[in-house]
Amino acid sequence: MLSKKFCVTLSPPHLGDNRADAPRLLAALPVDGSVAIPLAVLRRISEPLRTGGWQVTAALCRTKCGWRLQDVEPGDTTARHFGLAVDVGTTTVAVAIVDLSAKRKVAVATEENRQVSVAQDILTRLWTAAEPDGRAMLQSLIAETINEATAAAAAEAGIHPQEITAVAVSANTGMVHLLLGLDPSRIYCEPYIPVVTAPDLLRAQDIGLAVHPEAVVYFLPGVGSYVGGDAIGGVLVSGLHRQEEITLFVDIGTNVEIILGNREWLVAAAGAAGPALEGGVVAQGMRALPGAIKRVHIDPDTQRVTYEVIGGGKPRGICGSGVVDALAGMLLSGIIDRAGHFRDGRNAFLVAPGSETATGQDIVITQQDIKNFLRTKGAVNAAVETLLAAVGLNPREIARFYAAGAFGTHLDVEAAVTLGLYPDLPRDRIVSLGNSALEAARLALLSEEVREELRTIIAQITYIELNANADFMARFAGSQFFPHTDISLYPTVAEKLRAAGLLKK
Amino acid sequence: MLSKKFCVTLSPPHLGDNRADAPRLLAALPVDGSVAIPLAVLRRISEPLRTGGWQVTAALCRTKCGWRLQDVEPGDTTARHFGLAVDVGTTTVAVAIVDLSAKRKVAVATEENRQVSVAQDILTRLWTAAEPDGRAMLQSLIAETINEATAAAAAEAGIHPQEITAVAVSANTGMVHLLLGLDPSRIYCEPYIPVVTAPDLLRAQDIGLAVHPEAVVYFLPGVGSYVGGDAIGGVLVSGLHRQEEITLFVDIGTNVEIILGNREWLVAAAGAAGPALEGGVVAQGMRALPGAIKRVHIDPDTQRVTYEVIGGGKPRGICGSGVVDALAGMLLSGIIDRAGHFRDGRNAFLVAPGSETATGQDIVITQQDIKNFLRTKGAVNAAVETLLAAVGLNPREIARFYAAGAFGTHLDVEAAVTLGLYPDLPRDRIVSLGNSALEAARLALLSEEVREELRTIIAQITYIELNANADFMARFAGSQFFPHTDISLYPTVAEKLRAAGLLKK
Repeated sequence: MLSKKFCVTLSPPHLGDNRADAPRLLAALPVDGSVAIPLAVLRRISEPLRTGGWQVTAALCRTKCGWRLQDVEPGDTTARHFGLAVDVGTTTVAVAIVDLSAKRKVAVATEENRQVSVAQDILTRLWTAAEPDGRAMLQSLIAETINEATAAAAAEAGIHPQEITAVAVSANTGMVHLLLGLDPSRIYCEPYIPVVTAPDLLRAQDIGLAVHPEAVVYFLPGVGSYVGGDAIGGVLVSGLHRQEEITLFVDIGTNVEIILGNREWLVAAAGAAGPALEGGVVAQGMRALPGAIKRVHIDPDTQRVTYEVIGGGKPRGICGSGVVDALAGMLLSGIIDRAGHFRDGRNAFLVAPGSETATGQDIVITQQDIKNFLRTKGAVNAAVETLLAAVGLNPREIARFYAAGAFGTHLDVEAAVTLGLYPDLPRDRIVSLGNSALEAARLALLSEEVREELRTIIAQITYIELNANADFMARFAGSQFFPHTDISLYPTVAEKLRAAGLLKK
Repeated sequence: MLSKKFCVTLSPPHLGDNRADAPRLLAALPVDGSVAIPLAVLRRISEPLRTGGWQVTAALCRTKCGWRLQDVEPGDTTARHFGLAVDVGTTTVAVAIVDLSAKRKVAVATEENRQVSVAQDILTRLWTAAEPDGRAMLQSLIAETINEATAAAAAEAGIHPQEITAVAVSANTGMVHLLLGLDPSRIYCEPYIPVVTAPDLLRAQDIGLAVHPEAVVYFLPGVGSYVGGDAIGGVLVSGLHRQEEITLFVDIGTNVEIILGNREWLVAAAGAAGPALEGGVVAQGMRALPGAIKRVHIDPDTQRVTYEVIGGGKPRGICGSGVVDALAGMLLSGIIDRAGHFRDGRNAFLVAPGSETATGQDIVITQQDIKNFLRTKGAVNAAVETLLAAVGLNPREIARFYAAGAFGTHLDVEAAVTLGLYPDLPRDRIVSLGNSALEAARLALLSEEVREELRTIIAQITYIELNANADFMARFAGSQFFPHTDISLYPTVAEKLRAAGLLKK
């Protein structure tokens, strides 16, 4: 547990025992190791000792080597003790409030990352943060986003954010720099050196988080500029580092982060994935929110389109899973070829006519949209293959596949395999982890063992830098085909295409 | 050493070694134990690594259980490394700048404590600080005083205050509370409980000290509300805790702090001493500054007065040592009796007529001044005797006497014994330690062993509370005689009085 509460009863002072308040309190605390008292806390310990009739509850948090006193409250308040798990995504911030005494999640909330107002993509933000002013602006924007999400979750849970004394954060290395207000300018130029990948425990007030000012903030450790704590958290949740068979873990966001290995070895790599699949790839793309088309079915014979809208009603746009459904359908019904070109020369495919949409505008997938998707998919394939080549593995040796990230949650696995976004494995070997970064943060909040396990994973991983890798660039260029240039890697897709007469026997 | 500097050379990063800046630096530091990096420091480590061509100097300070990074500078700056020793007195603040690489004092300065503008006596200040506003005001006043003295000393030493990365503070417990901004209201009412007597190491910026913001601040530990780190520092400097013979240590300020014992046992006590002897007891009293009468001689036969002025020239007032000289002379030439009354019924004694003074006013010692002095002296005697009684010792068993405090520095030992302020011991057994509080701070700045020794002294001391001690009150009332009600405790004084026909055979 990052933060603990202890209710203790002290012997009241008298002339025969006139120890000062601080040592009197510390002597009563049932913890091993030294307990530091920050000045701000020392300034307010005396009052509760007396108003509580010498029965008080002390909140303590871990330090590098011991404990730090966070607060002292009169009486027994051990039942009210909360933590915050945070997934700081480039596009979305998700928080979960955890009851630390009951050890259960009591509320969750998500907010769009306010930094999006500065730039959709993280590289532009890192570039902006190279200057002190931009850095300060982006730092406060992300802090505000977290605070807003936290306030919403706290309201739902019926607690005050000040009751949160521990925070665990999952984020990619770039976002960690933006949240800490660190100069990220060396992350995006060779040799891609971050200031830090595993920050020390710090205090909420140091980064403007509106929880208890002395709340301890833990960051899940990352391994490099492009494989951050969010991906490592995913590995933890997947448990691939404990499995015997070779497993591929992929987190597709604006970056693609890949970890490959098993309980004996782990390699990691990352690359820019082009436009975010969370709706970023298509003109009318949107996040998976009410009003988004999340499912698309195209009848191979009639090419008639049917779709599902999140929350029902008229569609306002289409989200990543809808795009993947649509493209898979377009491929299997011969509307586009494996290179992504419209076979009949048209330049857009109509998913929903304006007459059916909330905006009155057609929701279409254009040639440009397809190019964008292929860029992203191609980056994923290239990264995976470069990593496999680097460790001398054949794609066929991958026994299990984990997809992390909010994107993976709604995705139709069959469609993802059809497009070559996911490998062509027995479907029960393909697991969508959902928001494993947030789950990992929740686990780290509750257990020192989990934090130790994260350190172990970090120590095992070999990080391979793809940004400067010529092999990656070549594969990237060569991998923009559905499902892949080498169709033999996708037997079930080849079979479907043949069945549809779209691939020669 | 509270703070250390290390010059290290790092291997520059490349694609094959893309560790982040922080772990790269930490790996190069030759220290055992964990090194924490405060966010403020983490935010600026990357630049110097590069401007210094991967050769940098890191400043680290001790923490409760390891090290904390204070700063990183390009190149080798190990030669410029400074510490500050501070004696925070109720009336005067003294600082010494210490060159931590050369281990020597390079400049000293003193300032009048700006809190004097609020109140001369510390009890009024503690009372004022019971309210948050008063507390904040007194905290900034003392911080300003220290900063002003530090700026003066830094200018003299030719350094910038920002180059000071370690501070050691000697102060009584009340002043510690005022400097830390702690509520001192329970110090002055039974059972006299301070918030803290041995504060944790903290950072200069936490209390507004204008040195390096990450400078570590160490407070000499005290043992109770009225025996503070300044007195314990005096014990350290005197070495009485290592001696075989029973020694009495007295620090006379606005409080009298007494420590009695030897290498086997130590007892401590304290009591309000009435007006400060640093000139506080008499109407025209002043601190021992240029223009103060520091020596007075009265011819027993002619009662003619001669005096010495600090810095020469015309006198502006009279300081403690001058008052003691004058009163001893007045007693031995029969001008006042042992109760302090003028034998010839006059109500004042003329030390310097207005015609000789800088102000044009007579410098006199009035009946009221004598009463004040007796109050202070009586408090010292009463405290000593109560403590002796408490441990069942006879005054004659005291083998050695140490006088601490600026006051002791200029005092004429013979006169102090004559008045009963000091015990009547062979004069070579009476040692004036001067400002032992400042000296102790200087030693603590330089050595972990010294800080360990201070902890040991604290652990050995038994603190006896006199404020609520009826015995003390009785002795206080009964001890307002020159040199003492029991003249037999002062054989050499009795001899002088007899020789002068002022005491019956």
